[in-house]
Amino acid sequence: MKIIKPTLLLDKQKCISNIEFMVEKAKKHKLSLKPHFKTHQSVEIGSWFKDFGIKSITVSSVDMALYFADNGWDEITLAFPINILQIKQIQYLSRKVKLNLVAVSYESVKQLCYMMQHDIGVFIKIDSGAHRTGLLPSQTNEIDRLITEIKKTESIRFKGFMVHSGHTYHAQDVSEIINIHHHSQQIMHKLKERYVTDFPDLTISIGDTPSCSLMDDFEGIDEIRPGNFVFYDLMQMKIGSCKYEHIAIALACPVVAKHASRKEIVLYGGAIHLSKEYLLRQNKAKNYGEVVLLNENGWKKPLRSTYIKDVSQEHGILKTTSREFGKIKIGDVVGILPVHSCLTANLMKTYLTLDDQRIEMMP
Amino acid sequence: MKIIKPTLLLDKQKCISNIEFMVEKAKKHKLSLKPHFKTHQSVEIGSWFKDFGIKSITVSSVDMALYFADNGWDEITLAFPINILQIKQIQYLSRKVKLNLVAVSYESVKQLCYMMQHDIGVFIKIDSGAHRTGLLPSQTNEIDRLITEIKKTESIRFKGFMVHSGHTYHAQDVSEIINIHHHSQQIMHKLKERYVTDFPDLTISIGDTPSCSLMDDFEGIDEIRPGNFVFYDLMQMKIGSCKYEHIAIALACPVVAKHASRKEIVLYGGAIHLSKEYLLRQNKAKNYGEVVLLNENGWKKPLRSTYIKDVSQEHGILKTTSREFGKIKIGDVVGILPVHSCLTANLMKTYLTLDDQRIEMMP
Repeated sequence: MKIIKPTLLLDKQKCISNIEFMVEKAKKHKLSLKPHFKTHQSVEIGSWFKDFGIKSITVSSVDMALYFADNGWDEITLAFPINILQIKQIQYLSRKVKLNLVAVSYESVKQLCYMMQHDIGVFIKIDSGAHRTGLLPSQTNEIDRLITEIKKTESIRFKGFMVHSGHTYHAQDVSEIINIHHHSQQIMHKLKERYVTDFPDLTISIGDTPSCSLMDDFEGIDEIRPGNFVFYDLMQMKIGSCKYEHIAIALACPVVAKHASRKEIVLYGGAIHLSKEYLLRQNKAKNYGEVVLLNENGWKKPLRSTYIKDVSQEHGILKTTSREFGKIKIGDVVGILPVHSCLTANLMKTYLTLDDQRIEMMP
Repeated sequence: MKIIKPTLLLDKQKCISNIEFMVEKAKKHKLSLKPHFKTHQSVEIGSWFKDFGIKSITVSSVDMALYFADNGWDEITLAFPINILQIKQIQYLSRKVKLNLVAVSYESVKQLCYMMQHDIGVFIKIDSGAHRTGLLPSQTNEIDRLITEIKKTESIRFKGFMVHSGHTYHAQDVSEIINIHHHSQQIMHKLKERYVTDFPDLTISIGDTPSCSLMDDFEGIDEIRPGNFVFYDLMQMKIGSCKYEHIAIALACPVVAKHASRKEIVLYGGAIHLSKEYLLRQNKAKNYGEVVLLNENGWKKPLRSTYIKDVSQEHGILKTTSREFGKIKIGDVVGILPVHSCLTANLMKTYLTLDDQRIEMMP
């Protein structure tokens, strides 16, 4: 297919080998892998996980749960604090699939318990230091209060504790990820010790791609829910979770103008395609993506010292060197490796594989 | 309508009075107003401009031009450097509507001239200091070269010069916007002097919402193309283009968790709804949006010292004070005034007016 506007290219082989890597890792460490589908949001890509025997998935919204439930997935964990305003949709889902929810607050749990007829599972979300949401491990009274409420309701089963060490995304290097992972592991271990007598099947579930990609010590952990690894991205590469060759998507962008005096090239492809997520370069300049040349087989390593220095709604401004400037011509199509693949995929809504297959995401 | 998930509220009255303000301003200064429709991307909202007599519009992509052309607009300026890969779509548009394009580079103009049969107009884009794209005013040889090429082709008419002083968006205050505006004005004035003898109908077109909102001196300018003013946003408010009461959209978000110890509240509404655009607060903390309480009539001023400190894919983290913390409860829906309304609207794809009318955007 001839590319004439911003198009999200997907290297299916890289994607499948990322899936295989995580499946093998989970097997090796006897972990249940419940991949987070918020990154790809696609039934087709979901089917590639099915080929590896995955039966149970994680999603981040009720709409996403409904989309996958309507497309043959019947074990779904909705890893977002219960939004009690969507109780009707939750009730519908609970009749249709084996559903797990995530509790953070007593108010929501109380209303949920009051309104659920069908079986569901509930995890309690623990904040191991990311401070996005979750109960602190020290809030044992509040944890007990939630569990007591859950136990009162026959249709609701306490599943265990869930953590998302999102602070690994801000890690400067692998050693920091290791420290965060071990800290979370200790916290979860203590919780397991405290509650396992009452709940022998209690599950400890962790989530972040950096820990799941890098660690080799999962003692005490039962389940992993990474999502981003399916594509990886520059942010993951920067913190050490992956290498360039694992990044499975690139935004193909037409070249529309060149400015030789400042070695900048204007691409058709901006904030509404890539997102405004950036990394900082060593000189503190913002980097919205790195640039690859495209060929029939996809792409190789990014061009040296070449990056997207700015994005506006439709424009991407590629900054490069004298050496690389001449390699890119007006009318060419170049690829951008995204900083944050989840946000880029969410904006683009469809993928184009290297063999010209169009893959749709949830509407 | 009961709001149960992130929903983009539109205060139609505010929006219409923003439109009226700009229409009146254009009239007063005898400017042709060609509003940029990239902000709202909606036929319905476009019709509110029609009610004020607007006949000619600006868009930022071929797809957007096709959408509005298919919906009754027949004078369209595509304010993005010519993407020669979309020449077939451009040819189609040129048969259907009165089309203006924007030239930055000789290569694109040459190919365009070779391939166009139907009448189109071409503006030359001038870079007055934003350094996104455009020819520098000093590149008169290059400008002459483009004009010579355009003149050779009967179906292509040289329309004039276009500038977008996008650096006003980074202004710290109104005086800086005034300076940028006057600088651009001088540049455009000189170009007009140089070329007006050969092209007596030559049009000078400026684009940015800050200048168009704030300035009262448009001498030498013929046409304005602001877009953002239709909704405005926090960024425009910060630089002085508007006040809170002019911001016409707010993202309604369910409240899903509260963390009293750090006075933080978790909202269902994150980067895939708001975008990752932020402002810096005085203490250099990132601010992804300010928070308003919602009622039947919309919203009033934002809560004091309350802002969105972080967003992940679906979560927004609201930071507040002891004083305001108690005002928001789990299960409530609060509003977020966006930092950059163009990006938020682009992500949300539909609007809900305060009287429950659903308004669609281009697909």
